[in-house]
Amino acid sequence: MSKTNPGNFFEDFAVGQVIEHATPRTITEGDRALYGALYPTRFALPSSAAFAAQVGLSPAPVEELIAFHIAFGKTVPDVSLNAVANLGYAECRFHRPLVPGDTLRTRSEVIGLKQNSNGRSGVVYVRSTATDQHGAVALEWARWVMVHKRDAEAPAPQTVVPELAPVVAPSDLVIPAGLDFTAYDFAAAGEPHRFGDYAVGERIDHVDGVTLTDSEHMMATRLWQNTAKVHFNTEARPDGKRLIYGGHIISMARALSFNGLANVQLIAAINAGAHVSPAFAGDTVYAWSEVLDAVETDAPGVGALRLRLVATRGRDETMTLRGDDGKYADGVLLDLDYWALIPR
Amino acid sequence: MSKTNPGNFFEDFAVGQVIEHATPRTITEGDRALYGALYPTRFALPSSAAFAAQVGLSPAPVEELIAFHIAFGKTVPDVSLNAVANLGYAECRFHRPLVPGDTLRTRSEVIGLKQNSNGRSGVVYVRSTATDQHGAVALEWARWVMVHKRDAEAPAPQTVVPELAPVVAPSDLVIPAGLDFTAYDFAAAGEPHRFGDYAVGERIDHVDGVTLTDSEHMMATRLWQNTAKVHFNTEARPDGKRLIYGGHIISMARALSFNGLANVQLIAAINAGAHVSPAFAGDTVYAWSEVLDAVETDAPGVGALRLRLVATRGRDETMTLRGDDGKYADGVLLDLDYWALIPR
Amino acid sequence: MSKTNPGNFFEDFAVGQVIEHATPRTITEGDRALYGALYPTRFALPSSAAFAAQVGLSPAPVEELIAFHIAFGKTVPDVSLNAVANLGYAECRFHRPLVPGDTLRTRSEVIGLKQNSNGRSGVVYVRSTATDQHGAVALEWARWVMVHKRDAEAPAPQTVVPELAPVVAPSDLVIPAGLDFTAYDFAAAGEPHRFGDYAVGERIDHVDGVTLTDSEHMMATRLWQNTAKVHFNTEARPDGKRLIYGGHIISMARALSFNGLANVQLIAAINAGAHVSPAFAGDTVYAWSEVLDAVETDAPGVGALRLRLVATRGRDETMTLRGDDGKYADGVLLDLDYWALIPR
Repeated sequence: MSKTNPGNFFEDFAVGQVIEHATPRTITEGDRALYGALYPTRFALPSSAAFAAQVGLSPAPVEELIAFHIAFGKTVPDVSLNAVANLGYAECRFHRPLVPGDTLRTRSEVIGLKQNSNGRSGVVYVRSTATDQHGAVALEWARWVMVHKRDAEAPAPQTVVPELAPVVAPSDLVIPAGLDFTAYDFAAAGEPHRFGDYAVGERIDHVDGVTLTDSEHMMATRLWQNTAKVHFNTEARPDGKRLIYGGHIISMARALSFNGLANVQLIAAINAGAHVSPAFAGDTVYAWSEVLDAVETDAPGVGALRLRLVATRGRDETMTLRGDDGKYADGVLLDLDYWALIPR
Repeated sequence: MSKTNPGNFFEDFAVGQVIEHATPRTITEGDRALYGALYPTRFALPSSAAFAAQVGLSPAPVEELIAFHIAFGKTVPDVSLNAVANLGYAECRFHRPLVPGDTLRTRSEVIGLKQNSNGRSGVVYVRSTATDQHGAVALEWARWVMVHKRDAEAPAPQTVVPELAPVVAPSDLVIPAGLDFTAYDFAAAGEPHRFGDYAVGERIDHVDGVTLTDSEHMMATRLWQNTAKVHFNTEARPDGKRLIYGGHIISMARALSFNGLANVQLIAAINAGAHVSPAFAGDTVYAWSEVLDAVETDAPGVGALRLRLVATRGRDETMTLRGDDGKYADGVLLDLDYWALIPR
Repeated sequence: MSKTNPGNFFEDFAVGQVIEHATPRTITEGDRALYGALYPTRFALPSSAAFAAQVGLSPAPVEELIAFHIAFGKTVPDVSLNAVANLGYAECRFHRPLVPGDTLRTRSEVIGLKQNSNGRSGVVYVRSTATDQHGAVALEWARWVMVHKRDAEAPAPQTVVPELAPVVAPSDLVIPAGLDFTAYDFAAAGEPHRFGDYAVGERIDHVDGVTLTDSEHMMATRLWQNTAKVHFNTEARPDGKRLIYGGHIISMARALSFNGLANVQLIAAINAGAHVSPAFAGDTVYAWSEVLDAVETDAPGVGALRLRLVATRGRDETMTLRGDDGKYADGVLLDLDYWALIPR
């Protein structure tokens, strides 16, 4: 058994430590097809090589979340195999669109540590960077996760809590080289709403719902080579349920958001994200969005919207994020804050 | 909510109206693989690049039903989101085989309208045309669908019922350029039966059955970007079941028909189709076929069979389409009338 | 019904008979993606084009078991449609890595026959050879299977039991042309353990478990065009369960073995295999391995390990293959003996 990976425990991490994660992974057209089978996505840019070419991107990139899940999955065996909870994301930026044939690998640096007062676990902060086959940065993000200690008696490390930006500054968004929305085909994309049609504060109920199944979330999670046991093994939790990978809910909500945000073609950054409640097979997921900010960019015809994407169990037509007590409302599964590109 | 698509209601359609449907979609090798994972298809031509090249088609086309489902799926948000029932198909012709890299988009023209006597719904007839990335017609079909009225008080439009051919004339079948069955490899294809071995009136019990699952039909239906809620959401129907997309049954029956029709390699046209009963997870689908007509074509070694493909819930060795009362027999799910190409 | 394939019965086979199996099949990137969605595989070589190129293989091969399942699936309609049980494998050798674009077809020769004493069935031994689009051998194997007789009164054939090697001799292993492990990237592969770190007799508990679902095993089994009814049809067995294709368990166990055998990148041969117990949806599969032998090869940096891969229902930390009575221990699903290539 000594040859198998038990994962790292809280006391195995040190600030400044760099971890090279295993299993580089080449993106293929098979990933694009499976993504479309697992999520009801209809965004024209990743769906159509012709549409993508028309806006300056050829070959057609795959959805940014494919790259995110692949890059993220690599960190699981080293960072979160013994996690209690995935606490948050920040400063996630997509540096270039990825296309079939690109190979991703991921490296993480430990940027913070804070033992919990109970002495049995602690919070690990990492900054992860995924590079392509040429060594160029493809995407990067920070996340923090609560990890078990192997030995409650192990001494606490010095507390280091990194300063992370609450929002990626618009000037730090990377616009894909060549992107040009001036000849954008709104009929092909499915909705007429452009940058200027969205008002800060506006909320959009995406209406549609999808009932989750175990086969589908397991297939998705394996595709990203995410190995956390709780997603696959009914013997891993006392209730015999398979906990659904939080990224599955992100992708489901993003796909559902097509209905109302069909022109939000590219995700440029993820500012923050919280997996508020666990999801299981049988739950029906709905989504709503709130427009948080809107800025123009230098790219021709390209605007950026900052959006809150909320996934819920059951539809909430009132689109309530938090109750009067300031806590997340019942049924909220995901609260994701991101920047996306849309034609002006 | 005003930004989301509520779908069209009966009174939103007008004869002569042209609808450009959203989300062009590029076909990939991933679609071919997923199709083979979702349906037990073993037809040699779409399975093998070597076999396809031997009969004059290179690269190997994907199954015609992949193109049909993709092209059809695009019409759902505009035509049948508020449908009561999909009533029928006619005059569906496949103009050229589609290969990975081809991009489809679909346009529909309203060709008929007939309000129901109850005043609460009506029948919409559309002719839909899917074109490839060069603007050439890839396939076309007519269908009619019963759609809810938004407002029962809205006035009835003038009734226009288009004349649709009960059968595509053999002279209108498009034979793929280059198709040549003279060097056809029957051993590779799996059965020795050629054009002349099938007699008009002959029925073939395809023997095998497949029990349906929710994960599989949802993955298939998403792959075609079909958004009808009832397929995905257990909260969309009072019985909590997910209604299976009729096209899933078409593809399942077509794949099952390999056993007895292994040399029916290409679908050239769909003359008519009726989704007789709904299907749900847990149903076991079987299929039988009846030879309706047989004509030679000008292409070398190529004959055309007109076939009735019947899918049933549970096996019916008697292959009974209709009872003495003229109604479809219990258990019939699908009655599809099509033209297909087979070596002479 | 006369046009459908009833499969061969015991008395339909004759020693020396050669069967050309149907449906040549081209491997695609879609197969690679689906394999990664269905099994938790993380081996770096088939996952990454960059990693594969670094060890001399470009384009990146797909996993050997994809080729095995495809080639094997073709034999089912002719050899094992009426099988009582799949009894064993031997002398399986992989002659070259397969890549997307390669087309496989399979031919089998009957090399042995032995009627059972009950007169109602018999054992059929076949040697099967899968060739690529150039006619070169891609892989070959022998297997024996117990097949029903159509007519218990049919005379027994002369008994011929072929001599099959209990183990493929190391000198008969085919090392892929160009394979060079001298610049092997252990960090990318995920574990530091190399050839010399494994001792004959060592056992490795692979720790992780996966709970099986019907949708997933059916999708896998269809992907290989395996048509055995019991895998797909709840009406095919008295208990209403879908029996899981034995190859699904092989692939699941092989993928789980990553945890402890991450550098066992290529399967070179399968010496023997027994499907000890049936598996069904809901079972949770675990795996353990035993090192049976270790030999160096002439290829730069390449060693070969002979491994026993055992899949179990439920985790057996004692890693017990057989009880004191010599019979397989409760819960053992699979006992597979194979040769694999690993960096020295």
